[in-house]
Amino acid sequence: MEPLDRQVGFVLEADRLKTVLRQSTLTDRSRRENSAEHSWHLALMALVLAEHAPPGTDLGKVMAMLVLHDLVEIDAGDLFQYAAQPQQARQAATERAAADRLFPILPPPQAASLRALWDEFEERATAEAKFARALDRLQPMLINMVTEGGTWAAHDVTADQVLARVALIEDGSPSLGAYARDMIDSALDRGILAPPGGEPPTGPR
Amino acid sequence: MEPLDRQVGFVLEADRLKTVLRQSTLTDRSRRENSAEHSWHLALMALVLAEHAPPGTDLGKVMAMLVLHDLVEIDAGDLFQYAAQPQQARQAATERAAADRLFPILPPPQAASLRALWDEFEERATAEAKFARALDRLQPMLINMVTEGGTWAAHDVTADQVLARVALIEDGSPSLGAYARDMIDSALDRGILAPPGGEPPTGPR
Repeated sequence: MEPLDRQVGFVLEADRLKTVLRQSTLTDRSRRENSAEHSWHLALMALVLAEHAPPGTDLGKVMAMLVLHDLVEIDAGDLFQYAAQPQQARQAATERAAADRLFPILPPPQAASLRALWDEFEERATAEAKFARALDRLQPMLINMVTEGGTWAAHDVTADQVLARVALIEDGSPSLGAYARDMIDSALDRGILAPPGGEPPTGPR
Repeated sequence: MEPLDRQVGFVLEADRLKTVLRQSTLTDRSRRENSAEHSWHLALMALVLAEHAPPGTDLGKVMAMLVLHDLVEIDAGDLFQYAAQPQQARQAATERAAADRLFPILPPPQAASLRALWDEFEERATAEAKFARALDRLQPMLINMVTEGGTWAAHDVTADQVLARVALIEDGSPSLGAYARDMIDSALDRGILAPPGGEPPTGPR
């Protein structure tokens, strides 16, 4: 098959990401968010929040990673970030198998280079991967703040669990990490996030 | 308001693009595509089809334009690309008004720089804008090819109308333009696109 035919085949296979649903809703709460539009939202955030990345971060690479990072969910589905550890481990294995299937749809040299970008995001060792991952953690928090607690409320997530995720945001962007900490304080104050210890939230006020 | 608060305000406002429906469906025909997931699909195409852009094209800029280009549809809605000229002119004015409202949500220097990127896409004068626009024209054709004619069939679009759009694709990428021409030939051959002159298509075979 011609390289361009393989590339078009990959683009059409990728369309299926639009049918993968996440736990988060849209800000208007009309329906659940899908992983394709979520990926767009993250790429937009990379552009808008670029100044919060460490100096020298390659923004084009961040956007490329964000556009690719959830493609494996075509086979693996989306797993809620607060799922139990054994489930997370199974998910990681399923996602690697999905990457093994999806990237080779592309012509060989490109299959390897885009797979390397996906691996880089997963390994979270470079500034670009850390910043991209920080945005992936921040976006659902922003949605929860304008949907009366959103997935926190729906899944009985407590502030200590959310705070544990803030380390990942700080690691990619100290200023966005500080912003996330302030949001958690505000969410506790507004009663849309349960305090550590698992007492139920006081409810929106 | 702090710059970061304004940036977050913009990111949350942008969420509404997920509710703007286009004429195209998903490849599985389960529902209509929205403009946010369409924008993601285009950014992915930019990455996958990058070698079909003229040498020296700044891929990061192409992706940034594609992520931003449809935001104005939050106010203006999506207009089918084959709508009549007076409607297209009204749409262009509504989209400019939307850009005037949306970009100033951002802190001033950034509002101007991202608005400039949006203007650049609209003016289609640079290699980046031409390539981005080519992808925006190519994507619905790819979907139509795997959905028995899709929007061509649904809106009685004829091959001469589609061919007129191929000039825009060729202008951004000669190789993708040639690919689009081959697709049109194949669509005519398969009877999923009506021939010039407005005779109805022969129907899928």
